[in-house]
Amino acid sequence: MMLINGEPNRQISPADRGLAYGDGFFTTAKVVRGKVEFWRDHVERLMLASKKFAIELPSLLTLFSEVQTAIAGVELGCLKILITRGEGGRGYSGAGCENPTRIISVTPWPAQYQLWQRSGIALAPCQYQLGLNPQLAGYKTLNRLDQVLIKQELESLDVDDVIVCDINGYVVESSAANVFWFEQGTLYTPDLSQAGVNGVMRKQVLRCAEQLEIPVNIVKFKLDQLAQVDSMFITNTLMGLVPIKQFQQRVLTDFSLVQRLQQEIKDD
Amino acid sequence: MMLINGEPNRQISPADRGLAYGDGFFTTAKVVRGKVEFWRDHVERLMLASKKFAIELPSLLTLFSEVQTAIAGVELGCLKILITRGEGGRGYSGAGCENPTRIISVTPWPAQYQLWQRSGIALAPCQYQLGLNPQLAGYKTLNRLDQVLIKQELESLDVDDVIVCDINGYVVESSAANVFWFEQGTLYTPDLSQAGVNGVMRKQVLRCAEQLEIPVNIVKFKLDQLAQVDSMFITNTLMGLVPIKQFQQRVLTDFSLVQRLQQEIKDD
Repeated sequence: MMLINGEPNRQISPADRGLAYGDGFFTTAKVVRGKVEFWRDHVERLMLASKKFAIELPSLLTLFSEVQTAIAGVELGCLKILITRGEGGRGYSGAGCENPTRIISVTPWPAQYQLWQRSGIALAPCQYQLGLNPQLAGYKTLNRLDQVLIKQELESLDVDDVIVCDINGYVVESSAANVFWFEQGTLYTPDLSQAGVNGVMRKQVLRCAEQLEIPVNIVKFKLDQLAQVDSMFITNTLMGLVPIKQFQQRVLTDFSLVQRLQQEIKDD
Repeated sequence: MMLINGEPNRQISPADRGLAYGDGFFTTAKVVRGKVEFWRDHVERLMLASKKFAIELPSLLTLFSEVQTAIAGVELGCLKILITRGEGGRGYSGAGCENPTRIISVTPWPAQYQLWQRSGIALAPCQYQLGLNPQLAGYKTLNRLDQVLIKQELESLDVDDVIVCDINGYVVESSAANVFWFEQGTLYTPDLSQAGVNGVMRKQVLRCAEQLEIPVNIVKFKLDQLAQVDSMFITNTLMGLVPIKQFQQRVLTDFSLVQRLQQEIKDD
């Protein structure tokens, strides 16, 4: 199912600036029984990006109504909302682009995530290092070539995901998820001021930890400092919270804290 | 005039990875009397990017033939060749994308560049700082949100272009051109190992300087070090070599060296 500017269209203009320059942003949400999980957080993310890039969103009523049309009857699915500055002329100027493009699409939910949540996955370090970009860090923009190249590397390895560092060697995220770890009862996650995406599920985890009075530390950590952790997990809105059962040579068996967070984090 | 995969089409698929992730690259060339200037350099640039991102190019015969169709009868124009990984599914994996998209388009040449080449332009420093990304630096990828935001800033200023630095304060480029300066007979241009686009015209300038036995220095220079320069110019394939007549409060009047390069750099 796909709606482009509200129409069941399957074509966009080659002059769309989303294609020419990655001039836009997106969010991906889990749909469960015809309902978008954490809808308010996704809207908040879209509004922050809209302000940052000066690309106007449709009214929330329009957006909600089109999303409802797209997800009607969907038992389990991935909703993607992609916004671009719309059609433009040659060159970087977005002046005069008055009609942003919105693409709302629904695809199947990856079934392996259920097993991942229960049994955990194996991670390896990634050789590819993320650039530093404090201007774009945190946002889920259409500039995702780094992630494409990271995924290429992951597909050459015999693991489920990779831990990606930035060019200074600081841990940032996995190939498509935020990363957390516990050490002596404190929850850690990387600082995202220079690189990485500030995920909707990451926010939920931090909110939940606060409610449970779990101490949280947002840090710049190098890869070798992860050797000491008691447990790890990765998160995004589609996979939820996925424990790590193996990282490099180390086998991690204590899933108790991540399981507690898995139970607590629910969409209201 | 536009050809998509060889057809005079005006539509692309919303599942094209160029749109979803900026998963592709492009080059822009000047067309003069039905001929592409510096064609071999543009092909070399496309081949380097093809190898880097593992996106197959069409055969050079196909590419050349489609370009000839697109530029037939064009007196002065801008040719853009844009290549993406083609249609794909959800997620960063490009596995199975066997049919890259190629978009060949021709638009009018911006007429002001003729005046710019002769009379020079005024530059100001840019507040927006480029991120560092040694993996993508040099390539003209479809990830150009930085340039979109830089252009937004430029449009709020009363100058022709801006000098952009990276987050460490090193001069990289202008909003859409490479930058050069002369000091005591030596030609300087920024190192592009961390940020910036390695332009086709930049290569021509370096080649020409070598032929003329002008000493060249590829440097990491901070903005305040530009206060001492004797003359400056910016370059891309569309504007050619454009002298700078004013930078910040300083008026630069000696165009002799850039004029010499302008005369020497010709497509064979």
